[in-house]
Amino acid sequence: MAAHPVSPLAPKSYPELPPIAGVRFATAEAGIKYKNRTDVLLMAFDAGTVAAGVLTRSKCSSAAVDWCRARLPGGVARGLVVNSGNANAFTGFKGQQSVEMTARIAAEALGCSTDEIFLASTGVIGEPLDAGKFAGVLDETATRLADTPWIDPAKAIMTTDTYPKLNGAVLDIDGVEIRINGIAKGSGMIAPDMATMLSFVVTDMPVSAAVLQALLARHVQTSFNAITVDSDTSTSDTLLAFATGKAEVEPLTSLDDPRAEIFGAALSDVLFDLAIQVVRDGEGATKQVSVHVEGATSDASAFRIAKAIADSPLVKTAIAGEDANWGRVVMAVGKAGEPADRDRLAIRFGDILVAKDGERAAGYDEAATSAYMKGEDLELTVHLGLGDGRATVYTCDLTHGYITINGDYRS
Amino acid sequence: MAAHPVSPLAPKSYPELPPIAGVRFATAEAGIKYKNRTDVLLMAFDAGTVAAGVLTRSKCSSAAVDWCRARLPGGVARGLVVNSGNANAFTGFKGQQSVEMTARIAAEALGCSTDEIFLASTGVIGEPLDAGKFAGVLDETATRLADTPWIDPAKAIMTTDTYPKLNGAVLDIDGVEIRINGIAKGSGMIAPDMATMLSFVVTDMPVSAAVLQALLARHVQTSFNAITVDSDTSTSDTLLAFATGKAEVEPLTSLDDPRAEIFGAALSDVLFDLAIQVVRDGEGATKQVSVHVEGATSDASAFRIAKAIADSPLVKTAIAGEDANWGRVVMAVGKAGEPADRDRLAIRFGDILVAKDGERAAGYDEAATSAYMKGEDLELTVHLGLGDGRATVYTCDLTHGYITINGDYRS
Repeated sequence: MAAHPVSPLAPKSYPELPPIAGVRFATAEAGIKYKNRTDVLLMAFDAGTVAAGVLTRSKCSSAAVDWCRARLPGGVARGLVVNSGNANAFTGFKGQQSVEMTARIAAEALGCSTDEIFLASTGVIGEPLDAGKFAGVLDETATRLADTPWIDPAKAIMTTDTYPKLNGAVLDIDGVEIRINGIAKGSGMIAPDMATMLSFVVTDMPVSAAVLQALLARHVQTSFNAITVDSDTSTSDTLLAFATGKAEVEPLTSLDDPRAEIFGAALSDVLFDLAIQVVRDGEGATKQVSVHVEGATSDASAFRIAKAIADSPLVKTAIAGEDANWGRVVMAVGKAGEPADRDRLAIRFGDILVAKDGERAAGYDEAATSAYMKGEDLELTVHLGLGDGRATVYTCDLTHGYITINGDYRS
Repeated sequence: MAAHPVSPLAPKSYPELPPIAGVRFATAEAGIKYKNRTDVLLMAFDAGTVAAGVLTRSKCSSAAVDWCRARLPGGVARGLVVNSGNANAFTGFKGQQSVEMTARIAAEALGCSTDEIFLASTGVIGEPLDAGKFAGVLDETATRLADTPWIDPAKAIMTTDTYPKLNGAVLDIDGVEIRINGIAKGSGMIAPDMATMLSFVVTDMPVSAAVLQALLARHVQTSFNAITVDSDTSTSDTLLAFATGKAEVEPLTSLDDPRAEIFGAALSDVLFDLAIQVVRDGEGATKQVSVHVEGATSDASAFRIAKAIADSPLVKTAIAGEDANWGRVVMAVGKAGEPADRDRLAIRFGDILVAKDGERAAGYDEAATSAYMKGEDLELTVHLGLGDGRATVYTCDLTHGYITINGDYRS
């Protein structure tokens, strides 16, 4: 795949995440598709690590997703293998064999059961993945495990991403420092309401698999499930969280424990930051857009309207053109199929009221609005005037860059 | 608005439609937005003309749509006024006043009641439409009414269209020649399941408003409701049919009349041809794509899967790049939320089987498939292997042209 220019919305620097007791990792160049870059990640967890996860709801899920779905109820993890360059999706029985072989090799290298290995693959769909490529690579990789730097695994899982995505949180629970580190990848084929592309989060907090799963499911709604680049949901979306339990505090085993709120808030922050990084690396993106919908009949209705706006090619191309074309926002509200009363609608671009009571706002200032549109981070707010429902969806603009990246041949 | 290059999919020539007894028209340059081109159409019907219509389901419908919705139950028409350049949508009470004033002026010019005037507007959303501009123009236009050439009204209703769209049918009913003429406009903000952009069909068949409405509603499903350019549904979609009843045959007043089938088939042909012309003038289009879904659990389910494929930016950009990226078709099937079994899926590009039983087809020939993708008219067939449900959705590719057209400033 041709290299694409780094997103203008890329972070200026990357955080140096601290080590987390109980987890080590190494990356390798297996040459699955890319040359001269890492494309395999092996992560090893100490005994006692619990796992939770959220997976794509695609009816055509990848072999690795199927594998994880079957192992998540076990709730324990000793290893994670991720490859980029081939999604091992829609590869039939061969895909299943490939997944089993990879898990077996990783389990042998780490000295655990295959059911304690989690897997994720990302890249082209429909191309058989030759697991033989992993064989020697994983054995050798397992000899180089280290607890830093976290930017290495973030780099190894990239596909069309133009920058690595990592974020962490350090919090105090019962006077003990607790750490949460996360990485993510994703740039195109990104749509909410399903899960995410690939993201892996690790913490040393002792937390039961059930509580970790509940917190993950709750906070994915306002992070990875609230972003869209192109409305296209992947076959491979996988968010996994691992808790090594090495921090010396009482285990968190109930959502009623007041510490669940504190830990959940920090987890939510990490997930949200990673999700926004995915949007800001949306294929061809030059602007980040937060679409707020308020006054809907319910939060779910607000979410669907916000998603209709954030998915609209006409809204997204107008934003790319720095055109304050709020009429297209009206169009998207109208097509969403949710309760809306045209004559109560109000729309703001940033703090500028552009429409009210079903028509252009009295003091509408085209020059000021156009000036606002030149910014890199835009806020678009629709007030429906019907109820208390609200939601935010995060997206990017739709530019020539998206067409160039996705109109390329696969080869 | 900047002129855009004529679609490479434009027809090589335009049909010369015959006059239809009972209808005359004229066009004018009112300078609503465009310079040096016609932007107003006045059509006059003889007394006894019945009307039927299908209108947008947008919650933010335009003032003209609201006007038509209120008049359609009356079922009688004497005049039609269409302007391009301003949609008079989201213009509040001013929009309503503008519509009423236009209807009043047209009714005076044609000597009929305002409730017998139908209206449609297309263009920018949210800009107040000064109906005063119509005043002198409509009076003068009414003095130039003629029964040909039909290309003139087709031209006057264009916005970002790169060619006028017209089609007709001549059929024999009871030994009498019956005529159906239709025009349409539309290029962007085109999505199925709602109605269409603007399309007007006229026939001399004596047919009751109820039968005309029933036939229109039936055949719009497989024509205008089965196309998508960009998944964005307009605030102004309007399809109106007028029957002057001048042909000297027994009136068609029941769907049980065997002639309803014959007349309906001809009407369906005209609607389908016009709908395909809209897709082929899709903003930036370089290829037309027919997406067939078979073997679904129901026709409705097949339609939703076909629409998910036809709306997918990743599928459409791959087609623009002449990339036989059938993995993206798998992705779109998977995200559609409809019953699908990955391991029964089969996909064909043209006659070439590319995937079967949940993986790449055994004899898959990348070179042959790539050669097929260079064509201008592509057929994409997904077989789900679950039931007898089938549907086809028609779309175009997603190119740099779409971004250029829609990323422009409105001014």
